[in-house]
Amino acid sequence: MLALRTLGKTCRRSPATLWRRTAAQSAGQRMDIRGIYPPIATPFTEKEEVDYLKLHDNLQKYAKIPFRGLVVQGSNGEYPYLTAEERVEVVRRVRQALPREKLVMAGSGCESTMATVQMTEQMARAGADAVLVVTPFYYRGRMDSKALIHHYTQVADSSPVPVVLYSVPANTGLDLPVDAVAALSQHPNIVGLKDSGGDITRIALIIHKTSSEDFQVLAGSAGFLLAAYSVGAVGGVCALANILGPQVCQLEELYVSGQWEAAKALQYRLIEPNAAVTRKFGVAALKQAMDWFGYHGGVCRAPLRPLSESEVKMLRQDFSSNGWL
Amino acid sequence: MLALRTLGKTCRRSPATLWRRTAAQSAGQRMDIRGIYPPIATPFTEKEEVDYLKLHDNLQKYAKIPFRGLVVQGSNGEYPYLTAEERVEVVRRVRQALPREKLVMAGSGCESTMATVQMTEQMARAGADAVLVVTPFYYRGRMDSKALIHHYTQVADSSPVPVVLYSVPANTGLDLPVDAVAALSQHPNIVGLKDSGGDITRIALIIHKTSSEDFQVLAGSAGFLLAAYSVGAVGGVCALANILGPQVCQLEELYVSGQWEAAKALQYRLIEPNAAVTRKFGVAALKQAMDWFGYHGGVCRAPLRPLSESEVKMLRQDFSSNGWL
Amino acid sequence: MLALRTLGKTCRRSPATLWRRTAAQSAGQRMDIRGIYPPIATPFTEKEEVDYLKLHDNLQKYAKIPFRGLVVQGSNGEYPYLTAEERVEVVRRVRQALPREKLVMAGSGCESTMATVQMTEQMARAGADAVLVVTPFYYRGRMDSKALIHHYTQVADSSPVPVVLYSVPANTGLDLPVDAVAALSQHPNIVGLKDSGGDITRIALIIHKTSSEDFQVLAGSAGFLLAAYSVGAVGGVCALANILGPQVCQLEELYVSGQWEAAKALQYRLIEPNAAVTRKFGVAALKQAMDWFGYHGGVCRAPLRPLSESEVKMLRQDFSSNGWL
Amino acid sequence: MLALRTLGKTCRRSPATLWRRTAAQSAGQRMDIRGIYPPIATPFTEKEEVDYLKLHDNLQKYAKIPFRGLVVQGSNGEYPYLTAEERVEVVRRVRQALPREKLVMAGSGCESTMATVQMTEQMARAGADAVLVVTPFYYRGRMDSKALIHHYTQVADSSPVPVVLYSVPANTGLDLPVDAVAALSQHPNIVGLKDSGGDITRIALIIHKTSSEDFQVLAGSAGFLLAAYSVGAVGGVCALANILGPQVCQLEELYVSGQWEAAKALQYRLIEPNAAVTRKFGVAALKQAMDWFGYHGGVCRAPLRPLSESEVKMLRQDFSSNGWL
Repeated sequence: MLALRTLGKTCRRSPATLWRRTAAQSAGQRMDIRGIYPPIATPFTEKEEVDYLKLHDNLQKYAKIPFRGLVVQGSNGEYPYLTAEERVEVVRRVRQALPREKLVMAGSGCESTMATVQMTEQMARAGADAVLVVTPFYYRGRMDSKALIHHYTQVADSSPVPVVLYSVPANTGLDLPVDAVAALSQHPNIVGLKDSGGDITRIALIIHKTSSEDFQVLAGSAGFLLAAYSVGAVGGVCALANILGPQVCQLEELYVSGQWEAAKALQYRLIEPNAAVTRKFGVAALKQAMDWFGYHGGVCRAPLRPLSESEVKMLRQDFSSNGWL
Repeated sequence: MLALRTLGKTCRRSPATLWRRTAAQSAGQRMDIRGIYPPIATPFTEKEEVDYLKLHDNLQKYAKIPFRGLVVQGSNGEYPYLTAEERVEVVRRVRQALPREKLVMAGSGCESTMATVQMTEQMARAGADAVLVVTPFYYRGRMDSKALIHHYTQVADSSPVPVVLYSVPANTGLDLPVDAVAALSQHPNIVGLKDSGGDITRIALIIHKTSSEDFQVLAGSAGFLLAAYSVGAVGGVCALANILGPQVCQLEELYVSGQWEAAKALQYRLIEPNAAVTRKFGVAALKQAMDWFGYHGGVCRAPLRPLSESEVKMLRQDFSSNGWL
Repeated sequence: MLALRTLGKTCRRSPATLWRRTAAQSAGQRMDIRGIYPPIATPFTEKEEVDYLKLHDNLQKYAKIPFRGLVVQGSNGEYPYLTAEERVEVVRRVRQALPREKLVMAGSGCESTMATVQMTEQMARAGADAVLVVTPFYYRGRMDSKALIHHYTQVADSSPVPVVLYSVPANTGLDLPVDAVAALSQHPNIVGLKDSGGDITRIALIIHKTSSEDFQVLAGSAGFLLAAYSVGAVGGVCALANILGPQVCQLEELYVSGQWEAAKALQYRLIEPNAAVTRKFGVAALKQAMDWFGYHGGVCRAPLRPLSESEVKMLRQDFSSNGWL
Repeated sequence: MLALRTLGKTCRRSPATLWRRTAAQSAGQRMDIRGIYPPIATPFTEKEEVDYLKLHDNLQKYAKIPFRGLVVQGSNGEYPYLTAEERVEVVRRVRQALPREKLVMAGSGCESTMATVQMTEQMARAGADAVLVVTPFYYRGRMDSKALIHHYTQVADSSPVPVVLYSVPANTGLDLPVDAVAALSQHPNIVGLKDSGGDITRIALIIHKTSSEDFQVLAGSAGFLLAAYSVGAVGGVCALANILGPQVCQLEELYVSGQWEAAKALQYRLIEPNAAVTRKFGVAALKQAMDWFGYHGGVCRAPLRPLSESEVKMLRQDFSSNGWL
């Protein structure tokens, strides 16, 4: 069964909550989500259909890396390009292929509260251990704390599994406000936050403001992983871990064991490759680099395009100049 | 049958195009989309289900206003909160309820090219006369001209009905680049652009760059409608037309008949109400004001929240200080 | 003496005002600033000293174009790179060289209120007919309506000549708020606004909100000049008028005489050259193009650099593709 | 004489450099700037004149705190509101009042290269040990790496004292590009960077890219000081140190001695007070809080306004809720 590392926390129950509790939660403890997670890519065939065989291959390799688990349907999984059925099916396949002790954190966010509630339920049924819920954002001008607290409370109230908040302003144009995170951290079914914005002051403040709640913050990128650890983050969901998984886990290990100088030296070398496969060139670069490192990357769904030749060169340079290629 | 006001244009055929042609298109003419369109709201029941009866009521009233047609599933229709089935069904109901001479322009944009192609086909089958296709935007850092031209070309190649491009940076964080619009304007099945950004220099430049193509530009807001006319736009898709429909049509009439002073005076009085129901307070304000003016507005789907009391006051003030309430 | 075209307005006196009145102001009328102004460039020698001879040459040519006047020390004059003494001296030389009926509008804005008051006084003494006062902006997070109203009121109270507000967000990162403009329009020594932001909805709203004050709005760019006229602007301060002065004045003439189609056709051809010498390539491009058109442009002060060869090519293309070269 | 803690670095000489060398530099070593610096405020009389007596009082108190030195004429010194003469005079007074072992780092940046060169020379003559040079920014669209490298090279070539680069995007709208920092780090008279942007990934990358140069990075804010240390920064220029100087120095001490948990706990409590006196309420808040903590704060020069009553309350709350008041 699922090995839960539990945190010593007494859950304050909100009387109105309807969520079902896992064994751990009933005992008043939050799911421990500490560790490193790759937000996995979704391989496609040349016809842009989900390629489950290649996915399975990748999972076999990831199973041997000391990840805490996998994030399925994060931004790097091209989730906005999958149908609802595909989103659920990918989660199911990942859960089946993965050793039980690895957490499957599934991205179940949709624009409407109603759709997010349903998708969350479906993913839990498909085997997700936790869900990662991106902020809705199309009407970002109206997505203030009030709206977001309402949204996440509805989702967490009804979710069969623990909820992790997800703030990714590069894609959504929206930062989940600190006061909203602080309020939501009191919900017994909300266990943490993945913050991909990289504003380290904000991350530290969130940890400060939620310190009485055993609320866990994951860095959303390998670029600021060490800095995030230094202010109290407990792990990371790092696109780069799809490619340099052992190295990202090694950074965690160096931090945990207090080897700061070695950690710093390693952190430095991860910044440019990480930027290259995220904000600089995006998912197509992630997949291109996966191909170089023995994983199945391949094509993206349209409208995402393959990299140009000169982009491929720059991408390679970002890895080679840091000693990875 | 559909009354097409045709423009004297010879269609250059791209040999690879697969789209079916309407009678007008076969004759080498583009669909004329000149005029005013309300991007209609979607009424919901208290349980947040689509309220088709109230929708029908609104349509009865809109049918009497000299609109060129209706936009269904624009941003004001809360399209990101509807399921794929609901999106199509609303289009079907609108087409059935509306007199044949009114155009139904249906918002068929999705994030992936594949989904957009399918949704476009379904909406055409449900009776849409044209589709309005918002830019995909989640991976906005990679949505350059190359990606967007590829996306829109695929959609337009396969669409049974004419395609209107849709750029709405307030929601998407992305402006469809001028050079992409210029390239796409040469596609015989792309007839125009709805530009909601309001950058009038850009709008004028687009009209300049597409002037050899009978490409038609619609202002995406009543706030800059007169200015857009002054540089060559041919109409507008205006949220405010859901509420002050006859007045927005009157602005068109004043412009067309050369009554500039009266047009200016009317334009001024529309700016604040328009801003209030769009960028300032959003769809909830649009629906609130619809209630005041005899239409069915009602609630939004979550996570959109009702206006606060003080927001309602400010909204009312924006209408009353301009003589509308 | 200065030929004032007066507007029929009764000046409401604020008892605390200390400013001296011109003849026109004493009669209760505001200075009429209608028309086209080039915001002139400052020529430098190869050693980056102000080249007054070349300036004089340019002025001889500008005197023959039907400009309403000249703006001296706008953003295109590299005013932040001039010493206080140079700023005043350039104004003095321009006033001396220019026929009396041309207005000299001098940019007297500094970061502190105190310095702006002093610079305004000095420029008035040097012969400026009016001053153009840019928003202070270094502490932009605190430059709210309250601070800006205080600043401009202090300046206008003490200025010997009429004050024109100046909002240029591309350089300052700050838009002078509409409510601040509306409040300041009631000051009898504030006669207008130069708006370089190009948000036409905002420009129309400002004109609406100040309509009881004979407040005059000038478009800050040739790119949206026709659109600005269409919503009530009375002229423009256009970088492009340094190069295509007669053509920009012709656009004014076409608008005034109601020749809309010709105006539109001309407007279109001005957009790209205008963008090229402003937001796209900046002052170095303005000066490069001045050289092509028979004016003295020359080098910029450092840190502004000359254009690269490829930029020069693109600049030329923006003029030639629109039929100007 | 000035106690230089030197770093073991061999200076590569650029043959064209004209700068005079200090003893330390001649020996091929860079000035060591490690440590904490308050960027001091400039006290004014009620008439907004520089109040040198109050300044002297503050300096007496700062001399007793284990600061490495003081920054004079940073953003918090309201430097854009001082005349050139005042800027130099304040530096002179600070140098006279301060014990010799404290570094005086003077902000000498101006918009033009020429003015910055002169101001740098004057400040060095007035006793500055190093200068801090903000990026020029008015024409930010043209301030690319080429322009900025040219600017800083000119300044560093002619400066009698070491130069520290200064990137403060909240005020300037401009980030000094990483590649420009890397190139400039090779100049023997450029010893470091103050980075106030707070993008920790960028800070780490800069340290990585300049690691062969003994280039020293200072965090520009107390909000991300610990995180900056964790990736290799060597100190901080922290507005909050004007108020909570001993505490900020204590954070340095905890970091240096490896007491991470205590460091973290202290860091958390500094974030909100720091944000309050910087991005949230600005210099007026800094001065208000200085008054509370026994320093002379007082008024700002216009157009900066005093805090409103409600802002004062929120400011107090940001200190008291973190246990400082």
